[in-house]
Amino acid sequence: MKVLVINGPNLNMLGIREKNIYGKESYKSICDNLQEVSKNLGLEIEIKQSNIEGEIINYIQEALGSFDGIVINPGAYTHYSIAIYDALKAVNLPTVEVHLSNIHSREEFRRVSVTAPACIGQICGFGAYGYTMALMALKENNV
Amino acid sequence: MKVLVINGPNLNMLGIREKNIYGKESYKSICDNLQEVSKNLGLEIEIKQSNIEGEIINYIQEALGSFDGIVINPGAYTHYSIAIYDALKAVNLPTVEVHLSNIHSREEFRRVSVTAPACIGQICGFGAYGYTMALMALKENNV
Amino acid sequence: MKVLVINGPNLNMLGIREKNIYGKESYKSICDNLQEVSKNLGLEIEIKQSNIEGEIINYIQEALGSFDGIVINPGAYTHYSIAIYDALKAVNLPTVEVHLSNIHSREEFRRVSVTAPACIGQICGFGAYGYTMALMALKENNV
Amino acid sequence: MKVLVINGPNLNMLGIREKNIYGKESYKSICDNLQEVSKNLGLEIEIKQSNIEGEIINYIQEALGSFDGIVINPGAYTHYSIAIYDALKAVNLPTVEVHLSNIHSREEFRRVSVTAPACIGQICGFGAYGYTMALMALKENNV
Amino acid sequence: MKVLVINGPNLNMLGIREKNIYGKESYKSICDNLQEVSKNLGLEIEIKQSNIEGEIINYIQEALGSFDGIVINPGAYTHYSIAIYDALKAVNLPTVEVHLSNIHSREEFRRVSVTAPACIGQICGFGAYGYTMALMALKENNV
Amino acid sequence: MKVLVINGPNLNMLGIREKNIYGKESYKSICDNLQEVSKNLGLEIEIKQSNIEGEIINYIQEALGSFDGIVINPGAYTHYSIAIYDALKAVNLPTVEVHLSNIHSREEFRRVSVTAPACIGQICGFGAYGYTMALMALKENNV
Amino acid sequence: MKVLVINGPNLNMLGIREKNIYGKESYKSICDNLQEVSKNLGLEIEIKQSNIEGEIINYIQEALGSFDGIVINPGAYTHYSIAIYDALKAVNLPTVEVHLSNIHSREEFRRVSVTAPACIGQICGFGAYGYTMALMALKENNV
Amino acid sequence: MKVLVINGPNLNMLGIREKNIYGKESYKSICDNLQEVSKNLGLEIEIKQSNIEGEIINYIQEALGSFDGIVINPGAYTHYSIAIYDALKAVNLPTVEVHLSNIHSREEFRRVSVTAPACIGQICGFGAYGYTMALMALKENNV
Amino acid sequence: MKVLVINGPNLNMLGIREKNIYGKESYKSICDNLQEVSKNLGLEIEIKQSNIEGEIINYIQEALGSFDGIVINPGAYTHYSIAIYDALKAVNLPTVEVHLSNIHSREEFRRVSVTAPACIGQICGFGAYGYTMALMALKENNV
Amino acid sequence: MKVLVINGPNLNMLGIREKNIYGKESYKSICDNLQEVSKNLGLEIEIKQSNIEGEIINYIQEALGSFDGIVINPGAYTHYSIAIYDALKAVNLPTVEVHLSNIHSREEFRRVSVTAPACIGQICGFGAYGYTMALMALKENNV
Amino acid sequence: MKVLVINGPNLNMLGIREKNIYGKESYKSICDNLQEVSKNLGLEIEIKQSNIEGEIINYIQEALGSFDGIVINPGAYTHYSIAIYDALKAVNLPTVEVHLSNIHSREEFRRVSVTAPACIGQICGFGAYGYTMALMALKENNV
Amino acid sequence: MKVLVINGPNLNMLGIREKNIYGKESYKSICDNLQEVSKNLGLEIEIKQSNIEGEIINYIQEALGSFDGIVINPGAYTHYSIAIYDALKAVNLPTVEVHLSNIHSREEFRRVSVTAPACIGQICGFGAYGYTMALMALKENNV
Repeated sequence: MKVLVINGPNLNMLGIREKNIYGKESYKSICDNLQEVSKNLGLEIEIKQSNIEGEIINYIQEALGSFDGIVINPGAYTHYSIAIYDALKAVNLPTVEVHLSNIHSREEFRRVSVTAPACIGQICGFGAYGYTMALMALKENNV
Repeated sequence: MKVLVINGPNLNMLGIREKNIYGKESYKSICDNLQEVSKNLGLEIEIKQSNIEGEIINYIQEALGSFDGIVINPGAYTHYSIAIYDALKAVNLPTVEVHLSNIHSREEFRRVSVTAPACIGQICGFGAYGYTMALMALKENNV
Repeated sequence: MKVLVINGPNLNMLGIREKNIYGKESYKSICDNLQEVSKNLGLEIEIKQSNIEGEIINYIQEALGSFDGIVINPGAYTHYSIAIYDALKAVNLPTVEVHLSNIHSREEFRRVSVTAPACIGQICGFGAYGYTMALMALKENNV
Repeated sequence: MKVLVINGPNLNMLGIREKNIYGKESYKSICDNLQEVSKNLGLEIEIKQSNIEGEIINYIQEALGSFDGIVINPGAYTHYSIAIYDALKAVNLPTVEVHLSNIHSREEFRRVSVTAPACIGQICGFGAYGYTMALMALKENNV
Repeated sequence: MKVLVINGPNLNMLGIREKNIYGKESYKSICDNLQEVSKNLGLEIEIKQSNIEGEIINYIQEALGSFDGIVINPGAYTHYSIAIYDALKAVNLPTVEVHLSNIHSREEFRRVSVTAPACIGQICGFGAYGYTMALMALKENNV
Repeated sequence: MKVLVINGPNLNMLGIREKNIYGKESYKSICDNLQEVSKNLGLEIEIKQSNIEGEIINYIQEALGSFDGIVINPGAYTHYSIAIYDALKAVNLPTVEVHLSNIHSREEFRRVSVTAPACIGQICGFGAYGYTMALMALKENNV
Repeated sequence: MKVLVINGPNLNMLGIREKNIYGKESYKSICDNLQEVSKNLGLEIEIKQSNIEGEIINYIQEALGSFDGIVINPGAYTHYSIAIYDALKAVNLPTVEVHLSNIHSREEFRRVSVTAPACIGQICGFGAYGYTMALMALKENNV
Repeated sequence: MKVLVINGPNLNMLGIREKNIYGKESYKSICDNLQEVSKNLGLEIEIKQSNIEGEIINYIQEALGSFDGIVINPGAYTHYSIAIYDALKAVNLPTVEVHLSNIHSREEFRRVSVTAPACIGQICGFGAYGYTMALMALKENNV
Repeated sequence: MKVLVINGPNLNMLGIREKNIYGKESYKSICDNLQEVSKNLGLEIEIKQSNIEGEIINYIQEALGSFDGIVINPGAYTHYSIAIYDALKAVNLPTVEVHLSNIHSREEFRRVSVTAPACIGQICGFGAYGYTMALMALKENNV
Repeated sequence: MKVLVINGPNLNMLGIREKNIYGKESYKSICDNLQEVSKNLGLEIEIKQSNIEGEIINYIQEALGSFDGIVINPGAYTHYSIAIYDALKAVNLPTVEVHLSNIHSREEFRRVSVTAPACIGQICGFGAYGYTMALMALKENNV
Repeated sequence: MKVLVINGPNLNMLGIREKNIYGKESYKSICDNLQEVSKNLGLEIEIKQSNIEGEIINYIQEALGSFDGIVINPGAYTHYSIAIYDALKAVNLPTVEVHLSNIHSREEFRRVSVTAPACIGQICGFGAYGYTMALMALKENNV
Repeated sequence: MKVLVINGPNLNMLGIREKNIYGKESYKSICDNLQEVSKNLGLEIEIKQSNIEGEIINYIQEALGSFDGIVINPGAYTHYSIAIYDALKAVNLPTVEVHLSNIHSREEFRRVSVTAPACIGQICGFGAYGYTMALMALKENNV
């Protein structure tokens, strides 16, 4: 089972960016750990990051035929990108949405996800461990 | 580590209730499996269910001192029970909110959670497996 | 044909409570009349009342297998109880919603019914006679 | 006791129009049955239908002095005709509003009735049988 | 003069619950003081607490005939319980609503009281002393 | 100077309809007085009334070339008839909107006029005398 | 009959201020004409202007006992001064609200009048002639 | 293939009405051209216009059995006539909605079409040429 | 302990103004009683009243250094004066907001207080006795 | 006459993406047909597609001087891209907006177009044939 | 070039008032510095402050003829004073709006400026230096 | 001190684009002038422009470590790019937001800035001179 992990805008700033909200671990370290975890789960993953909405759409479209599922953290685009929502609907791969922070206990505008209705489910508030949970959920879903 | 699992209104109807949304597995079977899973995770759990908003608040209050964490599926109360939100704030135990269905792809009124801001995080859309994920997240959080 | 009649919060106060809105007849007298009426209609009814949202949910759940239909006056819960709505959806019995007063000509917040979408239909404004109409509608529906 | 039954726009299309919502019975057949029913109830009725908002107002105004009550299904005008509301207030005859379908489980805009506050009560969701119920309610009201 | 004091959900957690908002004094100690105060005021009081919305309604209904007034802190139910509002309207006893914290300087959803329109008045922001003020107001009102 | 006076739905019910709001004078008497008044003002008027929105539009269109100004009381259509607004814009004759009652001190929905932006101005709250004021305003405007 | 004419903020700028909306006639000239007109109507008037909300309230309060009616153009305060509304309610004198421009064909926020519900009626869109109309309406009202 | 072309309120005023928005061509000339165009397209058309909402509904209902498709410009009724929407749904003929002006670049209230969801599609902004486009689209649809 | 009592617009009209809402006691009598009461409480008070928003702000600012607390009834300014809110924040003296009537059971716009978040708490619905309660609350707060 | 055809995000997925909404024809086939059609119309077209909002803006800006008109289907960006709206305003070329599906009969958020006010007009609901219609409209417009 | 600098309510409290938001410098010191700065810029300024909305309007009106421009910090009136907006429109002098704090990162209600549309532009977030910037902008504007 | 100046979508069209709003000066000329100005201020600047939201985010992220401050005109992205807001928060450099036009006197949707809360302050309405003001503000801030 092959999974594409897509991270949206500013996630490459992890470890630099607002640490009280997003934690101290660097983006590279999170990616390395996730590679480790996925091996243990018997999954093959590829991780991509982009700040550009349309590039994220490109990644999603290209996943069709090459991957069996998607884990996506659309960052701020979560809250207004109907285009990413449309892309997820178009490829129709099993997808799990992940957020590092609990989006329900921050600014009002972060509580609504435009992209989640195109996913199997959503996980938020568990930091980097949320990616692991998402992979397990995809695996469980696939059985 | 001891965890209290609280299920809200109508969850006892699982396997009977709208199966196209909630699946065919009965409530009892889900509870039995979860007991199994928690043993494997090295956790002790107790599962309670009530249709009464105030009884759920009682369970939350009584958890103080007896449990190290809570997994809660507040059912329909998720969307308007400020009283459950207040109870979770009052006991201040690490809590994970779980929903069987993807609340983002159903009726509009199910997209907002009044109780989630009092939790570490929220998991939705993965059926009964969401409880397992919640337990793992609590364990991870506790390390 | 067996019908469960459920009355929600404060309906036991009939005859005491705001008589200009709800009329002077006592709750007991209304129940007695309704028993009479149902016999004439060839229906068997059981009448329950509770001020507790969750107890009403319990009644609905327990109706499954024992009753062929429900007549419900959810009182003030009509306007916000998603949990009762969920319960009605779960048992999926033919249900008629009744209100004594015309909910459209009172406070703004009484005009929207959260529970009615889970019913066959709604009757309001005809006082205690509305229960009789609901029973006839259920009988008609059952033919 | 003489009752005027007024049907609004598109009700003449019954049996032709969206049958999954409004049923297969033709408008003429419904009217004929209703005449039958009213005789059994000891009521005299006259049935009018118009697609024109102002004509419905004319019917309501002309009812003054000739009829003892009104049964009205204002069709789509239910949701925006303040003019019909004003007409009902002006003649001040006991009026019952009827809808064939359950307006609470359809499009959002059908849930609010502009005309109901000028009526004794409202009945919805019971198909053509709702007219019978309305006549009985008027008779009951008149006793 | 006999007064029923009703405390809603989570008020039994006082002294444990968010102390920066509600203060350090325990619920029992507050109750004891209030008994003391009421004696000095020449009032007889009985204090009840429940987390269950419907039980609070029961208390209100039972007050009819046994008490001359009510002091109520409906806790989180303040903001959505139309059922409690209806109960207060039904018994029609002089009632004062009390809140420990200043509900106007907290979350937006705490600023609107659904129950206050059924009361003589509302007191908020003065901690446990608000109950004393409420008793004095009832006494003053009764003169 | 020739002026067309148009009265909308239910104004023909004056003297019959809700007298506490609209006064006791009959529609005919108001029309007769207005004819008298207009003679004294040196104006020629024609008065039309219809309950039908589209007929009112017909009157407005036909005024073009035959009248120098319009006095209109669109009744309930004031609050939703974009079609009448469009008709007034299309003929572009000096028009004055009149309401018998003070629309600002009644139901919320009566406070907004959809048609007034197509008029010179609006007069409300002065009963039948408002028509006299409107004629004087048209005369003044024409000087 | 004595009438107090109160003009609110910026009306003293007439003839200087946005002439395309308010006309070229100076404030002094309008006042002089109105004095003339009122003599012809057999009315005694006093005209006051202030830019200060509270001073306008003072004028209204002082009118009690000295004047038989008020003509008020509250200028921009029309749209938010609950305090002026309260003052008009408090003195309870027959009052007419006047606006020079048609408030319905300008910015959205000018369409709602907070003060009009405390008046007999409202006149807008007829320039300075609106004051004359208001005086006539007061006289008519007084007959 | 026979097509019914229905024009709503005020469209008969074309060439007279606000020319900067709707163009200088007269309604008659537009109709004549459209007859010409339809011949070239091999279509038979009949053109009707009414200012009366209910008459438009009559036309739509009568189209059933006599026409293969409808081109409709509901004018101002576009924005509030649920009754016309219902009529289009009832007859269920392929329908194209046309607007002469670009409804998206005018007043806010013109941007929402209540009737369009009952049509195949909508064309706006191309003046009288929009009718030609609509006929071509119906023809294309029919192939 | 010295306390400044500030009364906003129209409170000087007490005893004259809408007596069914505000009571029959005159403003002067209320002030005299309050002076009496404050002596018994061992407090020194000064009472000011103004109809002018900015003058109320002046009083608040001047209280700094001269008074130990403020009791304020901002009248209608309660509902829109951000400027008074800012002034209370600026001087940062312990302040209690008082309303004579129960603002929750009147017009919708009276339910929200813009100024209360800058106060310790709010008291409403107890008539003139509310000032006494406010003084007691300030004294209690100061201990 | 040279026309630039711009397709926004996910349109390259046509034939793959949700076929029940967008049809079975592949994007390439649609483009080839459109080239054919445009030749027959005597127009020269160039077709571009991008998932990236800013790239679409680049295309629009580069059209200035090279093209005589634009046909644009902004996909999901239709509903939130003020930046594309600004770009269309900036180049000020005659532009037609096209949507394959009827945006009025889908999700609520698809009914509002942010970009349409910068266009001559909008065509929706006619599938790939909408592009042909848009080209004809541009040609008609240019005559 | 002569410029009038107007400061609204509570700005005289600078250095006393909430220092974490508005800084520690006293109002007098800011005024003295601004006088210095304006000399260096070759501008003559006069600085006025008032807590009274209407007095600010007086200052604006009196500026006509005496000053070449206005710098205004309307304080809290920024957010609701349509009357100040009208005054600025009436005198039509080049005006710059200044706010010491960044109004976009505070309470929601501070983000909207009612008065800014009557100004050339707005400057916020730069403390007292904002006044210097405003003067430079006026000078630049005047060149 | 090194400052990065970032211009968002369509700003490269200056001098071409809607000149009545944005002025006649070309983008290149504005950039050249700004380079000049910054030398005089003793600042080193680099100017970047992009139409692509994600590229603007890239520029902001890359500024970390290379620049001491940012001047940003996010163009249309100002009103919806939570992603740019997040990027500014992430790098946490002193930033000033600039708009050429007065965003408060244009379309409603331009009045709210999503990005400004992540900046020191905002300057709008002064054309290209706003950039100079922003640089001076950054310099002043840095002292």
